[in-house]
Amino acid sequence: MLKLFYTPGTCSLASHIALEETGIDYSAVPVDFSKAEQTKPDYLAVNPKGRVPALVTDRGTITETPAILTYIAQSVPQARLAPLDDAFEFARIQSFLSYLCSTVHVAHAHGRRGSRWADDPAAHEAMRAKVASNMTDCFELIETTMFAGPFVTGETYSIADPYLFTIAGWLEPDGVDPARFPKIVDHRNRMTQRPAVARVLAFLKD
Amino acid sequence: MLKLFYTPGTCSLASHIALEETGIDYSAVPVDFSKAEQTKPDYLAVNPKGRVPALVTDRGTITETPAILTYIAQSVPQARLAPLDDAFEFARIQSFLSYLCSTVHVAHAHGRRGSRWADDPAAHEAMRAKVASNMTDCFELIETTMFAGPFVTGETYSIADPYLFTIAGWLEPDGVDPARFPKIVDHRNRMTQRPAVARVLAFLKD
Ligand SMILES: N[C@@H](CCC(=O)N[C@@H](CS)C(=O)NCC(=O)O)C(=O)O
Ligand SMILES: N[C@@H](CCC(=O)N[C@@H](CS)C(=O)NCC(=O)O)C(=O)O
Repeated sequence: MLKLFYTPGTCSLASHIALEETGIDYSAVPVDFSKAEQTKPDYLAVNPKGRVPALVTDRGTITETPAILTYIAQSVPQARLAPLDDAFEFARIQSFLSYLCSTVHVAHAHGRRGSRWADDPAAHEAMRAKVASNMTDCFELIETTMFAGPFVTGETYSIADPYLFTIAGWLEPDGVDPARFPKIVDHRNRMTQRPAVARVLAFLKD
Repeated sequence: MLKLFYTPGTCSLASHIALEETGIDYSAVPVDFSKAEQTKPDYLAVNPKGRVPALVTDRGTITETPAILTYIAQSVPQARLAPLDDAFEFARIQSFLSYLCSTVHVAHAHGRRGSRWADDPAAHEAMRAKVASNMTDCFELIETTMFAGPFVTGETYSIADPYLFTIAGWLEPDGVDPARFPKIVDHRNRMTQRPAVARVLAFLKD
């Protein structure tokens, strides 16, 4: 059985929703950031990077959100979470996942995790000050050039959707008014109406 | 025919090598950073993100190194650049690509592109000061926990290899002595002996 290591409020939500959408059995194991569990030997044995998510399979552990999402889509093909037989459409999804992971998530992380990239507290403050404008630029580009609608790639739901939903949920805490991005707001509403999404959100609240 | 937009010295090298490895026809179009061509309307029409690489196909343009590499492997399966029929092995490669893209490339970028994440020049200096130690940590983790050897995933060459080769080439300019990572040094030597790699490096020198 697949086992997902997750922390509420983090990017692990995307993988969590994708698992729930497949309808397969899986277990979800919390990693408590308030106790710095992600930095302890027990968890580093699961993921030496000290980050969530991590997906444990019977063949080994997969880390990195784009890789986990792709694995879920490929190993449960009947859930139809990605266009597996069309290299170009598949690449469009990979490109979107990669942009969220390498640019948008990273833009957000500069608000809380500045110590990854500089030691000086004044530099952390300078990074925090730029998060809202960077997140705005990223979502502007998503809304105008990447998002087909009503789902990320068009009519068909895919692994790109829970990932966008997860990161779009960081707009308010990052000081950006989502109302600037009507398509993203519509997407968020559409997502919360999905039974799988509602189940994961209810599970995380408990 | 596929068309790759590239700039010498950048991450586009990974996609360039992968294309050359397939043996298919493609064209390579330079984007001159010294003239800021990546920020001009002509190039923004190709890639609104203003970055290289971009791969133009007859169905549309693909951006993001992991997506381009995956597209090349999937659309030229006879080149055997990824384990396309094994979801777990494929995910291991995706995980590696994603780590390079979202963590290692980003660690490197803080040395030259600090203005992406802060406006204050003192903050850029603080970011620059941490690049060598971050790149060291990343390559330590790659060498000890991710790299199977002699290629990234073991005996078989894949799209993960040109990407590692590309980013490992940034160690010296980032102030890190590659000799600390004997497996990475061996990998770099092995890569430069491949005819496809030699051809791309010669092309970029001309
Ligand atoms: N590139 C990774 C990033 C994972 C990541 O940074 N996760 C954050 C939560 S959103 C984390 O575990 N942070 C813990 C820490 O930095 O100590 C992915 O997409 O999975
Ligand atoms: N996540 C993208 C990053 C692309 C990227 O940042 N490319 C750099 C060169 S290594 C670039 O085009 N920089 C130009 C600029 O920042 O103006 C990828 O992996 O393709």
